[in-house]
Amino acid sequence: MNVEQRNRRRFLKRGAGLAGLAVAAIRSANGQTTETSTKDLRPYGERSRFEKLARALVAPNGAASQTPLQDSMGIITPSSLHFVVTRYRNNPPDIDPAQHRLMIHGMVDRPLIYSVEEIKRLPSVSRIHFLECGGNSSPRLRRNAQTVQQTHGWTSCSEWTGVQLSLLLKEAGVQKGGDWLVAEGADAGKQTKSFPMSKAMDDALVVYGQNGEAIRPDQGYPLRLLLPGWEGVANIKWLRRIKVVDQPYLTKTEITAYTQPRPGLKGKALWFDFAMGVKSVITRPSGGQTLPGPGFYEITGLAWSGQGTIRRVEISTDGGRTWKDAQLQDPIHRIAHTRFRLPWHWNGEEAMLLSRSTDDIGNVQPTLADLAKTWGTTPGFFQTAFPEHFNPIQPWKVNSDRSVRDALFS
Amino acid sequence: MNVEQRNRRRFLKRGAGLAGLAVAAIRSANGQTTETSTKDLRPYGERSRFEKLARALVAPNGAASQTPLQDSMGIITPSSLHFVVTRYRNNPPDIDPAQHRLMIHGMVDRPLIYSVEEIKRLPSVSRIHFLECGGNSSPRLRRNAQTVQQTHGWTSCSEWTGVQLSLLLKEAGVQKGGDWLVAEGADAGKQTKSFPMSKAMDDALVVYGQNGEAIRPDQGYPLRLLLPGWEGVANIKWLRRIKVVDQPYLTKTEITAYTQPRPGLKGKALWFDFAMGVKSVITRPSGGQTLPGPGFYEITGLAWSGQGTIRRVEISTDGGRTWKDAQLQDPIHRIAHTRFRLPWHWNGEEAMLLSRSTDDIGNVQPTLADLAKTWGTTPGFFQTAFPEHFNPIQPWKVNSDRSVRDALFS
Repeated sequence: MNVEQRNRRRFLKRGAGLAGLAVAAIRSANGQTTETSTKDLRPYGERSRFEKLARALVAPNGAASQTPLQDSMGIITPSSLHFVVTRYRNNPPDIDPAQHRLMIHGMVDRPLIYSVEEIKRLPSVSRIHFLECGGNSSPRLRRNAQTVQQTHGWTSCSEWTGVQLSLLLKEAGVQKGGDWLVAEGADAGKQTKSFPMSKAMDDALVVYGQNGEAIRPDQGYPLRLLLPGWEGVANIKWLRRIKVVDQPYLTKTEITAYTQPRPGLKGKALWFDFAMGVKSVITRPSGGQTLPGPGFYEITGLAWSGQGTIRRVEISTDGGRTWKDAQLQDPIHRIAHTRFRLPWHWNGEEAMLLSRSTDDIGNVQPTLADLAKTWGTTPGFFQTAFPEHFNPIQPWKVNSDRSVRDALFS
Repeated sequence: MNVEQRNRRRFLKRGAGLAGLAVAAIRSANGQTTETSTKDLRPYGERSRFEKLARALVAPNGAASQTPLQDSMGIITPSSLHFVVTRYRNNPPDIDPAQHRLMIHGMVDRPLIYSVEEIKRLPSVSRIHFLECGGNSSPRLRRNAQTVQQTHGWTSCSEWTGVQLSLLLKEAGVQKGGDWLVAEGADAGKQTKSFPMSKAMDDALVVYGQNGEAIRPDQGYPLRLLLPGWEGVANIKWLRRIKVVDQPYLTKTEITAYTQPRPGLKGKALWFDFAMGVKSVITRPSGGQTLPGPGFYEITGLAWSGQGTIRRVEISTDGGRTWKDAQLQDPIHRIAHTRFRLPWHWNGEEAMLLSRSTDDIGNVQPTLADLAKTWGTTPGFFQTAFPEHFNPIQPWKVNSDRSVRDALFS
């Protein structure tokens, strides 16, 4: 950290030198007259050609890409780096918003059809929420995983803008007994999802904005259902239809891919277990990285809960023997990534880094062993299954050779 | 708003129909096997080809572009749409971050040179702050202006990540009498700015992150000085040098372009008046738009203060005779764009829309007449000068022909 003057000579060769301030002022006048190109002052700007940060392509069960959490900063995920999971190996639908419609029908007094422009004229809200795939950080993703992008990269956080679904439903007039809804997307596979009226009337949104502009095609352009805190697949993209019904529809994807088999339930599975648990992961230092050497580090990462607001993140550097409270970035948003930070001096010896988050309704992120107990099984089970809603404390092992490795199952 | 069934037949022609849910589930299985292209699952995503939102190019005194506020949503400005003001008609410097250095020197015990990587290893902070050009909304910009992008588009808001400048200065050890600093950029013109040590030690940042990724070249990649709430020109881009000095340096740009002539001061001007005032503007409906017709509208816009946190925004639809409190989007960040919203039923007659913001230290956005009084002049003066820090209440006139016009000077 204390780099002092070692690079000073090189810097001075490149730069203006210590007495350069007066010179600079004179040169600025010249610069104004000699450089006259505006061709690259782009209407829609681009990043530096030196920046290579990218989503990682994975395809365990379709096409998907993961957010590079190891280089994440703050709480906002750039829309260009938002994770994508789709069960179909296709491009996102190429929807002309002028042609797109959202229909609300079923057990309602007044079936409604909205254009995107009509939706945008309604009272709007913007909220910062994470989206996480139900399968994020599942052991099946870790077979060849080394980095936090590969283990945990199916979570991202955006400022979403749209209308409250409750407003649309009040307009339509929900009939007695209309206790569930089925949402349908305009993708080739017509992804559908059943969800209860209580969520629709609580905090569900129909969003058209992401981080200050239109949502991206791979996030559901021009309209997406947002069920804050609920597993990604429930947040129907390219939303074109919401039907009010009396019970869940049990569509194909709901009864096969997105149930939660629990050994303790003896062959049964959890259905309609939507809300993601309390979770956290250290993004730096993290798996696959090599530390430059002993010295100062800021341990930083993200915590989130699908059920509330993060209240506390504790960090251990000794595998869980001792814990320290990390600093949380203010203001903390409900159901949003929450950035945590803790200064750490690494002495060069083996260390085990853990983070443990707690939300405002008292959920505490479990260890792998505790999670197995809750599921009525042993940790080994997780390696043979594809558990969803998998939220154990993530251990990163810092080796004396300065490498950092995933140590969840070791 | 109550569109009901009028488009229903068209929708049904395009879509799956009311009984389509079961069909959808079956089709989804086919989709999975027949669509196998992943070529467009881009590592760094792009927006829809239907989205044309763009910065507007203006060049009153160099090269500049303005944020399309009329379509802004929430509080985050997409980095691709962040305003740019530069006094030089050139491209942003094409800086390789591996070669870039930041030097801190002058009246310090230990001159320091940091690489970008070294800066990133230090304790970091992320904060949501607006940046506004000192000349934003100045009458000189309005000569051919119609839209809020053209009148007010030199303000944007990002989540910035970096290190506290106070940390770097503590490392360097500021000597007695080192009461000012001069920051210098690596651009061709070597833009410089003097600023007092009190700001450096309060909330100044050296930032490398913007909205979750590296700051953009046109915002100072790879390092920028951020002086929250202070006029844009003080936030030196492509930051390469900070010199601790005993008094302001009065470099060329400081003594010519960025002073505040005040008629009431009889030929004198304000120097080092950096903090932007309390301000707001209705972004929708706004100048240049045409309303579809009488009916429901959400009046929405942005408020901000360079000196604190927005506490209140009032809206008038009758030219200031009556006012209503707008709803503010939570949580409200200090020195950040704050989104406000108010439902409005337009009866089709002439209306004058105003917004008035108040911050937490009691600053109230003035009318044009009040601002003129403060400056010791009359409103007409503003049309002949290029006033900076110009923050009067912005009136938008809604005409009976449904057009909306800038009515500041009418």
